[in-house]
Amino acid sequence: MKKLVLILLVCPLFTIAQNGDSTFIKKIADEILINGKAYDLLKQLTKQIGARLAGSPQATKAEEWGYKNLQNLGADTVYFQPCEVPHWVRGKGDAVAIVSMNNKKVNKKLDAVALGNSNGTEQPVIANVLVVENFEELEIRKDEVKGKIVYFNAGFNPTNIRPFKSYSETGIYRRLGASRAAKYGAVAIMIRSLTEATDNHPHTGTMTYNDSFPKIPAVALGRQDADFIASEGKKSTLKIVLHTHGKMMGTAVGRNVIAELKGSSNSQQYITVGGHLDSWDNGEGAHDDGAGIVHTMEVLRVFKALGYQPKHTIRFVLFANEENGLKGALQYAEVAKQKNEQHIFALESDAGGFTPRGFGFNMNADKLIAIQPWLKLLKPYGTEELVAGGGGADIGPLNRNFKTPIAGLQPDAQRYFDVHHARSDVFEAVNKRELLLGAINMAALIFLVDQSSIF
Amino acid sequence: MKKLVLILLVCPLFTIAQNGDSTFIKKIADEILINGKAYDLLKQLTKQIGARLAGSPQATKAEEWGYKNLQNLGADTVYFQPCEVPHWVRGKGDAVAIVSMNNKKVNKKLDAVALGNSNGTEQPVIANVLVVENFEELEIRKDEVKGKIVYFNAGFNPTNIRPFKSYSETGIYRRLGASRAAKYGAVAIMIRSLTEATDNHPHTGTMTYNDSFPKIPAVALGRQDADFIASEGKKSTLKIVLHTHGKMMGTAVGRNVIAELKGSSNSQQYITVGGHLDSWDNGEGAHDDGAGIVHTMEVLRVFKALGYQPKHTIRFVLFANEENGLKGALQYAEVAKQKNEQHIFALESDAGGFTPRGFGFNMNADKLIAIQPWLKLLKPYGTEELVAGGGGADIGPLNRNFKTPIAGLQPDAQRYFDVHHARSDVFEAVNKRELLLGAINMAALIFLVDQSSIF
Repeated sequence: MKKLVLILLVCPLFTIAQNGDSTFIKKIADEILINGKAYDLLKQLTKQIGARLAGSPQATKAEEWGYKNLQNLGADTVYFQPCEVPHWVRGKGDAVAIVSMNNKKVNKKLDAVALGNSNGTEQPVIANVLVVENFEELEIRKDEVKGKIVYFNAGFNPTNIRPFKSYSETGIYRRLGASRAAKYGAVAIMIRSLTEATDNHPHTGTMTYNDSFPKIPAVALGRQDADFIASEGKKSTLKIVLHTHGKMMGTAVGRNVIAELKGSSNSQQYITVGGHLDSWDNGEGAHDDGAGIVHTMEVLRVFKALGYQPKHTIRFVLFANEENGLKGALQYAEVAKQKNEQHIFALESDAGGFTPRGFGFNMNADKLIAIQPWLKLLKPYGTEELVAGGGGADIGPLNRNFKTPIAGLQPDAQRYFDVHHARSDVFEAVNKRELLLGAINMAALIFLVDQSSIF
Repeated sequence: MKKLVLILLVCPLFTIAQNGDSTFIKKIADEILINGKAYDLLKQLTKQIGARLAGSPQATKAEEWGYKNLQNLGADTVYFQPCEVPHWVRGKGDAVAIVSMNNKKVNKKLDAVALGNSNGTEQPVIANVLVVENFEELEIRKDEVKGKIVYFNAGFNPTNIRPFKSYSETGIYRRLGASRAAKYGAVAIMIRSLTEATDNHPHTGTMTYNDSFPKIPAVALGRQDADFIASEGKKSTLKIVLHTHGKMMGTAVGRNVIAELKGSSNSQQYITVGGHLDSWDNGEGAHDDGAGIVHTMEVLRVFKALGYQPKHTIRFVLFANEENGLKGALQYAEVAKQKNEQHIFALESDAGGFTPRGFGFNMNADKLIAIQPWLKLLKPYGTEELVAGGGGADIGPLNRNFKTPIAGLQPDAQRYFDVHHARSDVFEAVNKRELLLGAINMAALIFLVDQSSIF
């Protein structure tokens, strides 16, 4: 009976609250769809600045652009948070070609890109290819490796409906392949790009060396060339020339760009919204992660446009150096720790500017159950699930330091790895409405978190 | 108690049935994602044949291509179903330009396309523009219309989260605008293209004349030019030259292309799956509706590849002349009526080859409730709702003739009207995985309908 009374009491209140929230979220949506600046800001970032790898002059330019725009959007405070970042340079063009097949001279250029953080070669490396499907086959054939260029053929599993699953399954070849092969005397490695794109653009991405083995060069091949090597390399002797120029120059100063809207009642409790400002050097970093940057800025813009005064202090963070170091994220969490800040929630957009489909959360199950009624409020704007599993690389350290609940925007991912870390990740690959819808769902979620007592 | 026993009895059976269905649907998905031919077939249709308006030589070529491929895919029977279709031709290029602003000579070409079925002009039409927002304003300003080119500025409402809503709200200007303006003496009309695309490609589409009024020419403007006319035309006197060459040539013979997989136990009951083979003449008809055609073919292919023997006879129909006549659809329903065929369900894909998000149904509410448990089976592949409202232009007549339950695939629609009826509706605008996922959901739904006793 007590329960029934409680339900009778709570339900109408809940409905009234939901109606109010629903009205405000509709205002957020209308404001963004009519006056949204995310698309124009993305055009500036990608076309006026372009690629912006940590340590590059463009990274600095992007930080200044972010600072200025966060100020223009009306944040209460904007400041830089410096951190030490790796400074890797690709050097002049990556060049890979087949020079002979079964000892017959050929000249077939391959569309290849050096992996980020990898070392180049003073002289071109010329060697035969050993094709292996995976690390298991490498182990079995370790005696054949010496003096060879090892090609790892492991590719995306097309039957994974969610491409991020494929990425997490095959990412190890990019990250660890070079040292694994160097251990057995390989002189270089090539991997299949982490993509299912039908084109031939190669996809870069971060790798690390194990200091125990020679630091050999490493490249990714475009899909069509990968298919060729995989089939021809098994039946013919392929000799390859590989010449890359990557070099780790030491460290540089990078900066997180941080803006705040001060909370009215809980100003010492922080909600973070962010994306990462750096990008790989071979595209424009439009989906990865220009989209997350302008999503973040649009959340600030819409709150200001609607005169929304948050209860908690909201931090809008353009993180430095996600791609090849995560130094911005680590610095943000470290400073938070030093200052003993109270971080109640963090949200990242780092999965592209595609139509939103949901949010993934990393927090305790009680909270995840408690927020399920929000689904009804977000569904009209594309969010179809609020599920366990998610967050973002840049807010991960917050979660590890403070157990801060974190979440990641989950846009439809079918096209993400077509452009991810490739030269095709350009402004033109982003659709304006899809981008704006992402910002709507993010702003709505932050609004709900700010208003609720769940966090 | 009786109810409880029933639940206890039915639930395990239901779970077992769902497990079996789930396993078969996973097989469908894997087969399509690994061996799918939809993307290659779409490339053939768009690149080897291209645009294929009813009555054109390319329409005939497309019918033959469809016939041959449905045979190759292993249908039990393939046949043509002839119908009389309108034969409209655009003639040589549509030309529209501003020739003076406030009596000052200029030469600003506008990116314009004549509306389908509209009449051209022997001589260029030169006249001042009257900008009106909508039919209401036209009525108010009817005395100003005589001798003018009327421009209807009604555009998509960006706050509609689902763009099809915007299309249904503004489509009347394209369909009826010419005769409405001709009634008051307009010499031509221009409309804002039915799109929110940020580019300047104009979008065509069907229109009809009211025989009571002069049949004046009608064009659509690209968005940027529409913005220019809308703002300049309100403050300046704009004189426009407009020269189009459209002509209705009478009728031609079009053909529905029909393939069947014969049912094992209910061969006299038909399930139809289809899309339309014709397209507008200014693009490649890739999303509209090449995608629906290859979706349809892929459903056939996967059933054959998996050795699936349907209970009911499944018809795979490539409809003729959806765009400017619907004659194929009407013929299909008419023949079905003459033969007293029993049509238990029909499904169309005519909303593009984008990531699937659901199905819309036009059938009684009991059936819609009965199929909701299928949502759980389809959700892993992207379907998030089975909702009322939907179907397809080509299966509408079946529904009207027989009350056949009909459904339409609902892909994510944010990008659809960027390319719809524009020269940008080309193969390159279609993503392979998004296309294949549509086919998976369609094949799964047809499988469930075929197996169930609900229909």
